[in-house]
Amino acid sequence: MSASAPAHLHKCTDATIVPGKTTIHFTITDKVGALDECLAAIKAMNISLTRIESRPSKTQELDYEFFVDFDAASPQQVLEVSKSLEAISKQVHVVGTGGVAGGASSTDIPDSTPWFPRKMIDLDTFADKVLEMGEELDADHPGAKDAVYRARRSEITNLAKTYRTGQPIPHVEYTAVEKETWTTVFNKLITMFPTYACREHQYVFPLLIQNCGYGPDNIPQLDGVSKFLKDCTGFTLRPVMGLLTSRDFLNGLAFRVFHSTQYIRHHSKPLYTPEPDVCHELLGHVPLFADPSFADFSQEIGLASLGASDDDIERLATIYWFTVEFGICRQGDQLRAYGAGLLSSFGELEYCLSDKPEIRPFEPSKVAQQKYPITHYQPVYFVAESFKDAQMRVREFANSLSRPFSVRYNAYTESIEILDSKEKVLRYAQSIKTDMLTLVDALGKLA
Amino acid sequence: MSASAPAHLHKCTDATIVPGKTTIHFTITDKVGALDECLAAIKAMNISLTRIESRPSKTQELDYEFFVDFDAASPQQVLEVSKSLEAISKQVHVVGTGGVAGGASSTDIPDSTPWFPRKMIDLDTFADKVLEMGEELDADHPGAKDAVYRARRSEITNLAKTYRTGQPIPHVEYTAVEKETWTTVFNKLITMFPTYACREHQYVFPLLIQNCGYGPDNIPQLDGVSKFLKDCTGFTLRPVMGLLTSRDFLNGLAFRVFHSTQYIRHHSKPLYTPEPDVCHELLGHVPLFADPSFADFSQEIGLASLGASDDDIERLATIYWFTVEFGICRQGDQLRAYGAGLLSSFGELEYCLSDKPEIRPFEPSKVAQQKYPITHYQPVYFVAESFKDAQMRVREFANSLSRPFSVRYNAYTESIEILDSKEKVLRYAQSIKTDMLTLVDALGKLA
Amino acid sequence: MSASAPAHLHKCTDATIVPGKTTIHFTITDKVGALDECLAAIKAMNISLTRIESRPSKTQELDYEFFVDFDAASPQQVLEVSKSLEAISKQVHVVGTGGVAGGASSTDIPDSTPWFPRKMIDLDTFADKVLEMGEELDADHPGAKDAVYRARRSEITNLAKTYRTGQPIPHVEYTAVEKETWTTVFNKLITMFPTYACREHQYVFPLLIQNCGYGPDNIPQLDGVSKFLKDCTGFTLRPVMGLLTSRDFLNGLAFRVFHSTQYIRHHSKPLYTPEPDVCHELLGHVPLFADPSFADFSQEIGLASLGASDDDIERLATIYWFTVEFGICRQGDQLRAYGAGLLSSFGELEYCLSDKPEIRPFEPSKVAQQKYPITHYQPVYFVAESFKDAQMRVREFANSLSRPFSVRYNAYTESIEILDSKEKVLRYAQSIKTDMLTLVDALGKLA
Amino acid sequence: MSASAPAHLHKCTDATIVPGKTTIHFTITDKVGALDECLAAIKAMNISLTRIESRPSKTQELDYEFFVDFDAASPQQVLEVSKSLEAISKQVHVVGTGGVAGGASSTDIPDSTPWFPRKMIDLDTFADKVLEMGEELDADHPGAKDAVYRARRSEITNLAKTYRTGQPIPHVEYTAVEKETWTTVFNKLITMFPTYACREHQYVFPLLIQNCGYGPDNIPQLDGVSKFLKDCTGFTLRPVMGLLTSRDFLNGLAFRVFHSTQYIRHHSKPLYTPEPDVCHELLGHVPLFADPSFADFSQEIGLASLGASDDDIERLATIYWFTVEFGICRQGDQLRAYGAGLLSSFGELEYCLSDKPEIRPFEPSKVAQQKYPITHYQPVYFVAESFKDAQMRVREFANSLSRPFSVRYNAYTESIEILDSKEKVLRYAQSIKTDMLTLVDALGKLA
Repeated sequence: MSASAPAHLHKCTDATIVPGKTTIHFTITDKVGALDECLAAIKAMNISLTRIESRPSKTQELDYEFFVDFDAASPQQVLEVSKSLEAISKQVHVVGTGGVAGGASSTDIPDSTPWFPRKMIDLDTFADKVLEMGEELDADHPGAKDAVYRARRSEITNLAKTYRTGQPIPHVEYTAVEKETWTTVFNKLITMFPTYACREHQYVFPLLIQNCGYGPDNIPQLDGVSKFLKDCTGFTLRPVMGLLTSRDFLNGLAFRVFHSTQYIRHHSKPLYTPEPDVCHELLGHVPLFADPSFADFSQEIGLASLGASDDDIERLATIYWFTVEFGICRQGDQLRAYGAGLLSSFGELEYCLSDKPEIRPFEPSKVAQQKYPITHYQPVYFVAESFKDAQMRVREFANSLSRPFSVRYNAYTESIEILDSKEKVLRYAQSIKTDMLTLVDALGKLA
Repeated sequence: MSASAPAHLHKCTDATIVPGKTTIHFTITDKVGALDECLAAIKAMNISLTRIESRPSKTQELDYEFFVDFDAASPQQVLEVSKSLEAISKQVHVVGTGGVAGGASSTDIPDSTPWFPRKMIDLDTFADKVLEMGEELDADHPGAKDAVYRARRSEITNLAKTYRTGQPIPHVEYTAVEKETWTTVFNKLITMFPTYACREHQYVFPLLIQNCGYGPDNIPQLDGVSKFLKDCTGFTLRPVMGLLTSRDFLNGLAFRVFHSTQYIRHHSKPLYTPEPDVCHELLGHVPLFADPSFADFSQEIGLASLGASDDDIERLATIYWFTVEFGICRQGDQLRAYGAGLLSSFGELEYCLSDKPEIRPFEPSKVAQQKYPITHYQPVYFVAESFKDAQMRVREFANSLSRPFSVRYNAYTESIEILDSKEKVLRYAQSIKTDMLTLVDALGKLA
Repeated sequence: MSASAPAHLHKCTDATIVPGKTTIHFTITDKVGALDECLAAIKAMNISLTRIESRPSKTQELDYEFFVDFDAASPQQVLEVSKSLEAISKQVHVVGTGGVAGGASSTDIPDSTPWFPRKMIDLDTFADKVLEMGEELDADHPGAKDAVYRARRSEITNLAKTYRTGQPIPHVEYTAVEKETWTTVFNKLITMFPTYACREHQYVFPLLIQNCGYGPDNIPQLDGVSKFLKDCTGFTLRPVMGLLTSRDFLNGLAFRVFHSTQYIRHHSKPLYTPEPDVCHELLGHVPLFADPSFADFSQEIGLASLGASDDDIERLATIYWFTVEFGICRQGDQLRAYGAGLLSSFGELEYCLSDKPEIRPFEPSKVAQQKYPITHYQPVYFVAESFKDAQMRVREFANSLSRPFSVRYNAYTESIEILDSKEKVLRYAQSIKTDMLTLVDALGKLA
Repeated sequence: MSASAPAHLHKCTDATIVPGKTTIHFTITDKVGALDECLAAIKAMNISLTRIESRPSKTQELDYEFFVDFDAASPQQVLEVSKSLEAISKQVHVVGTGGVAGGASSTDIPDSTPWFPRKMIDLDTFADKVLEMGEELDADHPGAKDAVYRARRSEITNLAKTYRTGQPIPHVEYTAVEKETWTTVFNKLITMFPTYACREHQYVFPLLIQNCGYGPDNIPQLDGVSKFLKDCTGFTLRPVMGLLTSRDFLNGLAFRVFHSTQYIRHHSKPLYTPEPDVCHELLGHVPLFADPSFADFSQEIGLASLGASDDDIERLATIYWFTVEFGICRQGDQLRAYGAGLLSSFGELEYCLSDKPEIRPFEPSKVAQQKYPITHYQPVYFVAESFKDAQMRVREFANSLSRPFSVRYNAYTESIEILDSKEKVLRYAQSIKTDMLTLVDALGKLA
């Protein structure tokens, strides 16, 4: 059988699909009553608000920042709202499709920057933005004509649709038929891992058995797995209805969030699936996200994707494809698979390490341009020397892209900071300084 | 009225009060079946297990780490368990009262190190370890003879007793009488803040009004406040029954967790309380924890307290007392209050900035030795030049203490890392390197 | 005998004594012929030029920098020159006495900043600026009436007067009488070092014997000693005629340059000298400058002194006095001397570690205010916990001073960089980043 | 004319050519008399000593380090000396050809490491180690049959032969014929720079005219040029007789030292030279070494070459060839030359930016394998995006080489530090920490 391996992103080349979504971010000076005036002004505008938040500005001037999300009826409306706010604000930034000129400071996020999540809670907006719903199956999907299977998918994807940040991931009580499918996949793959899987995968697998209920007879629950990953690397899982856009999917990685399906493939073809399912997630992706260097690497792709142009998203999605989904790596004098698309496909797992495909070194600028098939095995794979090395290469590649601002992820606040002012850079430098103090202390205390 | 201001810690000089609590942490080599053998061995021991976890070791050797918590019946039992584990493990560390010799590597945590939380979830063990229960009131407590008040306290403290990491903080529907108490306190203090409160407090207060329901007629809910703080600085609140030991309370700060009461003082004396209550927390502490530099400062005390000796805990608790509770700071050419004990006490707030008390510079080594009264106003206050400066001074003071190992807080995994091996120090250095790459990129993109 | 120990700085509280010395530093845009125009304009001014240099600006804009030194006839002349240059230049800074308003950028060095050396070669201007010449002796100097001694001093100080950067330090062929004086001092002190000198002094001393000709019968040559120090820590010696002003002397330390006398005390009182001489330098100062941490500490004082106000120079000179000249330190559970004034005075060396003087902890803000006698033993000494600790404390103290700009010493170019633009800070950050890459590589390769 | 451009290294593929040169480096414990014993032991050995130095070890243990250089008569002798020293020393390292087993610590420099300079003064050993003497000309050299020219070359190369570290570079009074050659070259090239030379070259050139005597009628003196470069970037020139081995030449760059010829090409063919001469150095190399980023880049190659295997030296020499000698770079949307071989050859300078040669991106792993002709124009050039980018790529390439230890250059002591112990890494980390403190201070003071 030469069917393709499952993988996230493989049809996800569209850009943002909710064009009206707009965030206006503006800053006002700290003075008595300023916040209230501002709030009143916003409410007086005739817009469909989805969020208003006022927050400390995290700069020395102690200004206030407002974040206002709304569904813009038209670019014209965005322009009007933006103009109104300029009357009361120091700086107005419009982020999102239909962005219109705001404050002119050259350190600003350019108004043409595509919308991107700034806070963990912003990922909630992805919940129902899927390209392909879990229940609407292609004609050639093994379960396309199975009404029971489709109803069951619908039931599970509904859990994802209503999932919100901070909630435990819903428990799914899998049926006997579903468990049987899992058992077949699990038993088949587990015989292949010792020969083909990378060291990191093999290392973590027994821990998943011991801590997360992995085994031939049990489909592990995403919630427990997510907590385990949080402990290991800070990665968490979020349930998803189906395929997200590349942009949304990669943006999630910036938060160390992996969007994971919770349903399982059709029982008629247990060793085949045209799309990600819970077998792909749990057996392919999860073990790698427990590795600190792989986690760093994955987040690096995510950070590069925030506010990237559509072309750059395409490039980064291709890099994601050839690493997180279909990557192989050198370990000692051997090659091993670390991509989830390989690790969850017994056919391609054997093929990818045979002498049939072409093997090339992992150079992001080349990888980003590589075309790839999505319906059969890859003719070309790229070899990473190590996850740290791959991370540094992606970092460099990202620096060569055109994004005019720098971001960091603040793990304390679970938010993205845009390092676009001296104050923010200074605060960041202070935290690095504090880290250096700790490092020197730790080095001094090493035996 | 010269009654004391409320403050955490003011009777909390005892050391750990749950003597049997023990964590054994050991490492085993990655080989086939090793995890299962180990698990079987532990279960065969006749001990009262409260947790078994196996985790990746986060070092290059890819060993496995086990964390086993149990309630030791006796020091003898700890010794026996430790000996048994040495037969199967590379390194055995016993942390907690009754610690007994384990692996002899000089980089190890010494066996005499008091127990400390390593993961956010470990804070759950504090839930019922309170020195003074919320419902058992001293004879001179204004509510001591009010059975209705005591029942109500019990109702609220029970929520804290069963609270566990990751849950939303329970909503408390405050009664009309409770709200009236709040109104009195709120209205009184709000007139004083513009004159006496530090800039950071005044800056954040309007945001709390706008985002968290602060106002004369509403007692804000801890859950919303905690989410707001998480957004600002990563600090979160945890409900607590009453006073924790100094050790536990300070250990929480290492995780940017502040243990907060949820009940309110007795309505008979709305402007007086002998202990922390929700007015003290919400009006005194919360605004400061929204400030990034104050958050860094507070965590610094917390990090220093992890595994500290009893004497050092006493020193750090005294520093906490004279800063987070009773600190004043220089702003321009004026002094202002930032300690919550001051900010929530209209009497002491005025007094502390008058010419009556003695004012000294904030030098931790001196502060740590200062005696203080807990039943009337402080005769001495210490002035911080800035929170960043205070943080650096506490850091230096902490370095002068005797703890033989270095720790860092990993905000991704919400856990404490002990930097006691070259691999851990290397991984930390790599993360600082990555931060430097981002800093340079951000600096280069600044206008 | 209660005579004072010799020490640098002990009468050197005056500010700059060459009031006309002025440096004008200005920047011009890179365009064809700009440099030539500028040079012509300067030469057309009727001023007494001592240096004209054009250099790359080391910023991204690729501007040119001019450094023009001249002896100003009057503040009026400085003003005129400055005005003329403003017509052709982007930025004009006047540094030195009589400074007059130039470019108004807020990142500039304020025009009131006292002159300070920017390049190693600038130290040449100190050569004949001594407060007290070696040949003009006070009436109570043991050699005051000895014409032969005074002629000999004059001969040696003339070597210093004509010494310039980059030259080898002249060889002095010491006379038999001079050698005898040395022998007496050497033999006396060497018996005391094992008991009173700090570990670093004792450690280096045998190396000086083996490499630099230290011994009872030979007065080591400054040139060889300077080369040895350069090898150890990058410190070098420069011959000096007599006492420099505090400002000049401390400024030298910023370049890791120590101004050293080359003549010897009068033979009539070999164990006494009212001023620094070659015995004081070689036996007291030199061994410490071979220690990397002490070198860092000394340079820290020097860096703080660059462009400092007269009051701050006074404070730093006092700190210098109580450390480099009269410092004692804790080593294990004992106190030992590291100050050169102590180590070269057999009387005070014994006294300082007896129970007679008062001993206080080294807190720069306190030390800076301490009065001290210069004609008899010190009543108070300050104890450093370690040189690294002392360095950090001086750094903090320096940060509390009022200087509005930051400096770094660039050891490659042997020059002071003023970090007053984003480009300079960025370049510095890049070099720290490169260092972090090396550190991570080195850590990874450690066994 | 299609003759080749001149370039350093073009025949320099041999490895070390002075096989007997050996450095033994060993460490002894600080105890009374240890140094003297050791010295006596060395002198008792029957070896041809060229240097004995004892130095502080720069580690916390305060051991002493000895550096003993000698010309080994045979590998057998090295073995004997090494064995003898092991009896008195903690650690014995043999560096150089014929290295023989010493201390077995895994952090040591392996005994197979080729000799490399550790201190600036070690470069003196290169003075007479040239592959091709300046006076022995190939038969096809334009001056091969001109006895006067050859005598003059000999006169000038003799100055280089006796030059030693720290001396001023000898002044050469050029003859009228020599000046005429210079004039021809200068006038020709200067018309081409505005079109073909990179921005950095064009920027610095007027400064060289103004400060260093560049002009059509004057051949600048190396000494003044070297001082100018020292001011700009810390690079210095050293006179050299002719072509050094690749190893020695690249090792010099680690110290920011560029070995430069001082004689000039034959007057019969002023626009052609088969080898580097003073025109090539002054017009091609010097302007670039005044650029801080190019200086960093060049030193990076030098650092990678220290102790590298012969194969790695070959790779690094090829990278040097295609950058420092024949590099082109992107500036805006144009290509420009920065390689000295191009900038000093009017023929190849035009050719290299025409559409004839092949242009490839600068990827060190590819560049290192590229074959190149030395007698005619290059068919392939590599384009650097920026010098900073090129530096980072060389750094990465260097990390992929097999050298098992890390080095840093200490600009204070002008020496190479091998970061092979925790103490050395700690000291380095402390200096980075101090730099971070300065960076944060500077950032905070930026406008």
